[in-house]
Amino acid sequence: MSIAKIGAQIDELDTPTLLIDLDTMERNIETMAGFFRSVPAELRPHAKTHKCPVIAQKQIEAGAIGVTCAKLGEAEAMVAGGIRDVLIANQVVGEPKVTRLVNLAEHSDVIVAVDSYINMRHLADRAKSKGVRLNVLVEVDIGNNRCGTDPGEPTLELAREVAGHNNLNLRGLLGYEGFCQNIRDIEERREKAHGAMAKLINTKELLEEKGLDMEIVSAGGTGTHMITGRYPGVTEVEAGSYVFMDATYSRVEGLEHFNCALTVLTTIMSLPRQGVAVCDAGLKAITIEPSRPLPTVKGLNGVLYERASEEHGRLKVEPDSGLRVGDKLEVIVSHCCTNTNLYDYYHCIREGSLEDLWKISARGKSQ
Amino acid sequence: MSIAKIGAQIDELDTPTLLIDLDTMERNIETMAGFFRSVPAELRPHAKTHKCPVIAQKQIEAGAIGVTCAKLGEAEAMVAGGIRDVLIANQVVGEPKVTRLVNLAEHSDVIVAVDSYINMRHLADRAKSKGVRLNVLVEVDIGNNRCGTDPGEPTLELAREVAGHNNLNLRGLLGYEGFCQNIRDIEERREKAHGAMAKLINTKELLEEKGLDMEIVSAGGTGTHMITGRYPGVTEVEAGSYVFMDATYSRVEGLEHFNCALTVLTTIMSLPRQGVAVCDAGLKAITIEPSRPLPTVKGLNGVLYERASEEHGRLKVEPDSGLRVGDKLEVIVSHCCTNTNLYDYYHCIREGSLEDLWKISARGKSQ
Repeated sequence: MSIAKIGAQIDELDTPTLLIDLDTMERNIETMAGFFRSVPAELRPHAKTHKCPVIAQKQIEAGAIGVTCAKLGEAEAMVAGGIRDVLIANQVVGEPKVTRLVNLAEHSDVIVAVDSYINMRHLADRAKSKGVRLNVLVEVDIGNNRCGTDPGEPTLELAREVAGHNNLNLRGLLGYEGFCQNIRDIEERREKAHGAMAKLINTKELLEEKGLDMEIVSAGGTGTHMITGRYPGVTEVEAGSYVFMDATYSRVEGLEHFNCALTVLTTIMSLPRQGVAVCDAGLKAITIEPSRPLPTVKGLNGVLYERASEEHGRLKVEPDSGLRVGDKLEVIVSHCCTNTNLYDYYHCIREGSLEDLWKISARGKSQ
Repeated sequence: MSIAKIGAQIDELDTPTLLIDLDTMERNIETMAGFFRSVPAELRPHAKTHKCPVIAQKQIEAGAIGVTCAKLGEAEAMVAGGIRDVLIANQVVGEPKVTRLVNLAEHSDVIVAVDSYINMRHLADRAKSKGVRLNVLVEVDIGNNRCGTDPGEPTLELAREVAGHNNLNLRGLLGYEGFCQNIRDIEERREKAHGAMAKLINTKELLEEKGLDMEIVSAGGTGTHMITGRYPGVTEVEAGSYVFMDATYSRVEGLEHFNCALTVLTTIMSLPRQGVAVCDAGLKAITIEPSRPLPTVKGLNGVLYERASEEHGRLKVEPDSGLRVGDKLEVIVSHCCTNTNLYDYYHCIREGSLEDLWKISARGKSQ
């Protein structure tokens, strides 16, 4: 990375570089915080999106109750960055990780999900050896077809055994209606999310009837925050992408009050022929996944990002685009969460100049 | 990353982790080196695949004449790792990079590609200021529809101006038949690659007729090395993926004597229902790109990697798979070159135990 000087203008930065527009990000944080002031559920933003404790701290200052993580390594990075309240919305499996988890529990309020007896007993055993009481949610599969116990009796059985371990503290349930997040039509999304939430809340009520405390019911994401966040019985929502937005979520109805704060700055390397420009941001600088839209060029009509190879992005341009070799463009990423995993730093921009550099300290922390 | 002890067995490593099977990689290096001993063209392997000077050194010890890079940042990492002979098979554009490039030229034999007058004059100007003579290839578009001048006269014109600058040293031409690499049928691949090479070599001959020295003609990749490497007039081939192979190249006819050396070790996190297992390697641990096959599970029949989300891989398993939560699998990646860009280290395995850790020092060096 070329060294960038604080105060530099965007055009002076080397490329490809990951930029945050701070004004836009701060508005997104405040908009979501404002929504959660209006409903009983709390916001526990997903830090897998930004992987950066500086941003997590800003979300907490605006009212969030802590952060959600996808991996233990992310949770460790958040705790190292001063965040105490961390939910790992995932299973933590295997000897090295379970040892790390109980170590982390000694100096944080970490909560972990379980969905199997073998893993839960492993957690209980190591928590006992370490002398800690580990906070646990049981993960319920509410239609996402990924991890989780089946709703109802299977969840009750596992939760009862969790509650029976002195070194495990059953705090509640986790469910994720991930399959609803990117449904563009809001009515269809609402209907499917309500179906998923009914499974989760019915299970919660069953467990409460059987005498189990259900202090936490965690669910939701950016695409369903306004649905799940209002659903009776849901106590916290894990929305993450709202902080940056991206080309995928920009197509989803009902998120118009969030704006794209994350871009990749890229340089035109070549204008090989009429109608084509090649920029220096390819698959190693902008993630492109099956079933997601391509990145989009910010603020320029008639320039389309149409194809990526590893280190090249091919742009379709109008004949009168006026682009020259060396010009710089900002590209709105397709999927913010995987894109931030490619970079070591955010270049933080305010009104066109570099205000700060933030380390993406949980980049690559998939263990 | 959990600390791994040298000598540890694969099963003791934390996951997801990127593994190299050293015996397989060394055979791949020797197989390709053997081919290039049998033809006039030389091998200059593409380091974008491994991004690791330790591996580049092994390729050079086996007979390669240097390395190819896609980015200046990769070239800097190779030179810092002791590799002197580096071709950047790409345009290096913009003030910060051109300054870095002429600095690098002071203590290495770096060669760079150009395809525009504006960039070429910028290189000449900064090379003059620095007092270096910069090695240049003109990049020709031989059908890849990305960067490059048109074959014939347009290339001649640009090459003449390169040759007229005292601080630029015109070494030859670069052409890349990237569109041929993954064509599965070898005869179709050969026909298309020959068509591309004819454009490149005809242009070379035109430039030679006009009195320009064409010491280097660089082209080719893993999928075409046996075609392009035999094409009269091609002096060096840039094959990269052969060192590791992957699920994409495994489907390409004529590469059967190379084997997959690169895997992601992953743990089964959850067995939520009959026929489904969930592992801890998703899109942040295994790249999945449009138009490429999914990753494949190594050495296990009846287990298919069928879907990835950010930190989860969903596997389809036979009812009698015998898999348990906590079991570990090796997954052959879909595209080796983008996959290595996600990790900071290779865990190097020989006969099932950890022999070494190598830093992927050009990871993320897209600038």
